[in-house]
Amino acid sequence: MKEVGIDILNSSKVIIATERKKRPMDENITNKGELLNVHNESCPFCRGNEHLTIGETFSISDGNDWILKAVKNKYPILDQNPINKINGDHEVIIDTYKHDGNFYNMNEEEFYNLILAYRNRYISLSTKEAQYICIFKNYLRKAGASLMHPHSQIISIPFIPAELEREYETCRDFYKKMGKNMYNHIINEEIKYGKRVIHDSHNFLVFIPEVSRYTGDTIILFKNNIYFEKISDEEIKELSIILKKYFSKLYELEGNCPFNMYIHAHPINTEDDYKEIFNVHIHILPRKFNFGGFELSTGVYVSSISAEEIAEKYKFN
Amino acid sequence: MKEVGIDILNSSKVIIATERKKRPMDENITNKGELLNVHNESCPFCRGNEHLTIGETFSISDGNDWILKAVKNKYPILDQNPINKINGDHEVIIDTYKHDGNFYNMNEEEFYNLILAYRNRYISLSTKEAQYICIFKNYLRKAGASLMHPHSQIISIPFIPAELEREYETCRDFYKKMGKNMYNHIINEEIKYGKRVIHDSHNFLVFIPEVSRYTGDTIILFKNNIYFEKISDEEIKELSIILKKYFSKLYELEGNCPFNMYIHAHPINTEDDYKEIFNVHIHILPRKFNFGGFELSTGVYVSSISAEEIAEKYKFN
Repeated sequence: MKEVGIDILNSSKVIIATERKKRPMDENITNKGELLNVHNESCPFCRGNEHLTIGETFSISDGNDWILKAVKNKYPILDQNPINKINGDHEVIIDTYKHDGNFYNMNEEEFYNLILAYRNRYISLSTKEAQYICIFKNYLRKAGASLMHPHSQIISIPFIPAELEREYETCRDFYKKMGKNMYNHIINEEIKYGKRVIHDSHNFLVFIPEVSRYTGDTIILFKNNIYFEKISDEEIKELSIILKKYFSKLYELEGNCPFNMYIHAHPINTEDDYKEIFNVHIHILPRKFNFGGFELSTGVYVSSISAEEIAEKYKFN
Repeated sequence: MKEVGIDILNSSKVIIATERKKRPMDENITNKGELLNVHNESCPFCRGNEHLTIGETFSISDGNDWILKAVKNKYPILDQNPINKINGDHEVIIDTYKHDGNFYNMNEEEFYNLILAYRNRYISLSTKEAQYICIFKNYLRKAGASLMHPHSQIISIPFIPAELEREYETCRDFYKKMGKNMYNHIINEEIKYGKRVIHDSHNFLVFIPEVSRYTGDTIILFKNNIYFEKISDEEIKELSIILKKYFSKLYELEGNCPFNMYIHAHPINTEDDYKEIFNVHIHILPRKFNFGGFELSTGVYVSSISAEEIAEKYKFN
């Protein structure tokens, strides 16, 4: 029996068809995610190849050399132009100096430094013209990455992107009808139910949403409705422990799995006060499957595994 | 300089960032699309393995054996259920009996048979409960295919999918404002401009839309606003020549490239008369790239190649 659920954050229809997980699949190749090479001669993001990148904007050093840095993106999605009004900044954050480093072999300290960099660049890119700051990461070609060397991206956008607009609208509607923050409601309900929770820590709830367009979509939800730039060092520490644990689990279950990670934060420079109604959250999408013609053609999504089943496997020990 | 365009069919924002096509890419493996094996012992869609599929609904024979057939999908996205109202049928069309057959090595006659099958199954699945019939095809895992044996899919849906709803709305708005069918307007404008046209035949216009969420999105637009089920044998013949030429060109340019193909048709059993305002069209999406975290996070798309540049390469000889 099929059911149709609604991904409440964007009102997308999702068909729940759990028998489909039994369908046969031709074999697929997955490569290893081990740390083999710290350096690659021709990689623009490796130490010693600084001349291949442009405009360093931030770095963290181990005392001798940089271990993480941010640079301007040489091939930006948005840039500064005096003629049109579609201005923005696009930077690349080199997650670690290690060429074969990745979220599966990075340690807590490396995650800590990376989130520090996210916060720093978020603040810097929050100029008057920006209405939204997008932080995201693509891992492996299947998830949209063009280069292997581990990196994240941050872009300031002079409008509120469609996806976020829908999400803010949902939160506003919920607040108007129920008189409370939707995320607080979700936190309470998910903790009470328990079966979709992967980890419940002091400041964050990690869970699999009941209905989602992307099978395996995992949310790290900030329990407090702080702006992303206000995340404390203490919270960054807590978050880096969560990321280390989550990606260890993902590697254990799926090997060197392609994934996307992105942060959904408040808009900036808007008149609406979204602070009370919206909580920052991080999405992690393991890209096990690709959208096919059905999803692309219809805008209707299909889920063949229940959130409870996924959460059960991913629960932190 | 970056520009923002609107994909008029669904109002999505697309950032045009043509310098990005110069960005470096780590190498990727592409396999061949040659016809090596006609038969595979364990394939459920090969001749002799009929016991592995369920419920044949249609077939075309060469006099001795089937060369194409349609069967019920064993792992349906939608099915019939008396309890809930989310009823639909999901069939698989086995494009050809040849295991290694594909759109790159099929001949015109095979395409002709396939579109005949699409028309036949479209009519059969148009039951009272259905509001939309979705025909689509995924080629290779990157495009969402789970099995290699060439196949298409058809699903009847008891509601109008979000993507189509947006498109009908756009057409309705255009008709109200301009007093004419939007697609006729597009046909005239594209033929006049010429640079985005790949092929202009009697009943179809093949072109690259000016702005599209998916780089390389190619549209085969029906010049007449007939319902898909009313496509004539003559038009099917013309369409099969176009498909043969398009996929020969795609193979020449991109090798064994994963792709999706889907048909956007009129809704069925609706009170609105969409006949005058909507023209059926086929989308072909070569899946050279995958959406990354930016697109998934924001619902904003990035295009790094202009429609004119793509059309220039794909023009039929």
